[in-house]
Amino acid sequence: MSGEGDFIALMRALATGPAARGLMDDTAVLNRPAGPLVLTTDTLIEGVHYLPDDPPEDVAWKLAAVNLSDLAGKGAAPVGCLLNYSLSGDGAWDRAFARGLDEVLGMYAMPLLGGDTVRMPEGAPRSLTLTALGGVTGKPPARDGARPGDVLYTTGPVGDAGAGLRLLQAGSNGPAELIAAYRRPRPRMAEGRALGPLATAMMDVSDGLLIDAQRMAAASGVAIRIEAVPMSTALVALDGESMDARLAAACAGDDYELLVALPPDTSPPGGVTTFRVGAVMAGAGLALMLDGAPVPLPATLGYEH
Amino acid sequence: MSGEGDFIALMRALATGPAARGLMDDTAVLNRPAGPLVLTTDTLIEGVHYLPDDPPEDVAWKLAAVNLSDLAGKGAAPVGCLLNYSLSGDGAWDRAFARGLDEVLGMYAMPLLGGDTVRMPEGAPRSLTLTALGGVTGKPPARDGARPGDVLYTTGPVGDAGAGLRLLQAGSNGPAELIAAYRRPRPRMAEGRALGPLATAMMDVSDGLLIDAQRMAAASGVAIRIEAVPMSTALVALDGESMDARLAAACAGDDYELLVALPPDTSPPGGVTTFRVGAVMAGAGLALMLDGAPVPLPATLGYEH
Repeated sequence: MSGEGDFIALMRALATGPAARGLMDDTAVLNRPAGPLVLTTDTLIEGVHYLPDDPPEDVAWKLAAVNLSDLAGKGAAPVGCLLNYSLSGDGAWDRAFARGLDEVLGMYAMPLLGGDTVRMPEGAPRSLTLTALGGVTGKPPARDGARPGDVLYTTGPVGDAGAGLRLLQAGSNGPAELIAAYRRPRPRMAEGRALGPLATAMMDVSDGLLIDAQRMAAASGVAIRIEAVPMSTALVALDGESMDARLAAACAGDDYELLVALPPDTSPPGGVTTFRVGAVMAGAGLALMLDGAPVPLPATLGYEH
Repeated sequence: MSGEGDFIALMRALATGPAARGLMDDTAVLNRPAGPLVLTTDTLIEGVHYLPDDPPEDVAWKLAAVNLSDLAGKGAAPVGCLLNYSLSGDGAWDRAFARGLDEVLGMYAMPLLGGDTVRMPEGAPRSLTLTALGGVTGKPPARDGARPGDVLYTTGPVGDAGAGLRLLQAGSNGPAELIAAYRRPRPRMAEGRALGPLATAMMDVSDGLLIDAQRMAAASGVAIRIEAVPMSTALVALDGESMDARLAAACAGDDYELLVALPPDTSPPGGVTTFRVGAVMAGAGLALMLDGAPVPLPATLGYEH
């Protein structure tokens, strides 16, 4: 398989809802109840956002997961997605990508609604775009609502994906859970829906805990102090818990946990894993206090686009 | 200007509606009334879908216009759009693109809601994606509803854009209206909204009158006979009206007129320009009858993706 028609036939198997019209039409037509619609789109470029030898199934997973994570940050449930796909001329790659997409869209119940398939000039890197639509009941949280006195949480440890990337770049293929954190991030959909209605501010941590916390502080017009860096058992086993290891975890990207500000009298709901990572205060900017003592901020707080 | 921040600042000037949240957030949040939402997305690749030396303003125009035309084919009004933009490293190109996008989005009242900006590896072709959302009152027309007895219309002449491309490729820069038809197609938004509620089938003619009529016939399970090929005065002045010239016009892409099937007792509404181009009949497939006599179909009916 290397033709557009063959790839579209694979996609048709993923586009079974009525809105997709069997991918036979120029557009998708979505019938949906009134209510806020959350829209997000992300592009992955081969060699920039993923490694050229990453398994195609994992590239598809990541493409969907980064968009799903943006929906999670708004407490939204997936409604559907559109795919812009550049044919590689490599049928096995295309088929593997289609398998990975089927897997991730099935896992998160996000139907494919439509898209566009293009051929690239010889030798050009793949360019893959997914646009996701989500629905939310009530008012979706923004990143600009954090207030002094709020308590800051994440929905999981940070640094695993960054360690996974580092291991892959060094030629290692384990530990498996760190590699999986990089290649198959798990967007926090259920956590987002549970925390969204309670949060004063919420966003996904895609570029690093410190840089994303700084963005939340700037958007909200408050100061944020990070007081803890939650790390997984696997990451501690690899890197230890030194100050350097904790700072590296706090600056690593691609984790896709949620960063959530809750009012001081609001506890995280039962059944949702959260880690207390800091506090919101009057003022501006980001500060770091670990083991009860101020720590200078690293020169680079995370991944800058 | 060459940085992502600078480009996003230009885009922010185009994203003034509340749904865009000033492009400060990871997502757009759209509050809209219930009703069908029409979704379409198109990717333009440098060197594949446009000429590398096309003016960037015109590339932006075309990127928006091809999506708007898909909305027009559904009788939809623009609600907003998302842009996936690959930074070129060429600030002047980026600024010119932003100007063209401003112009076309303003002309068609389609606000920018969000998007994603990426860097490409050195030497990679630009990859530009726009995703458009439209709203429609009532049931949007599909391409599969044409019935025997229907009359087939287009909203304008065909072949101008194809001639414009041919002229540019031959190093010519005129006649201006043919060049403009290629570089700045005018999606038929008002015509689509007027004709949509009356049409049994409707679609935009992006790949050529013959190939798109064949697609409508196949989707609808009917036969279509093309009986006339409307040509502009400028195209007739360039190519004449021979059978070859008419067949070339009927197979040319990029015109973005609408192809509309209306029931026999339904006239096109006043104020909407239409050309009668054929008839829908029982059976299957496409036939061509010009000057009252059957004409063999060309080997290639239009642009095949």
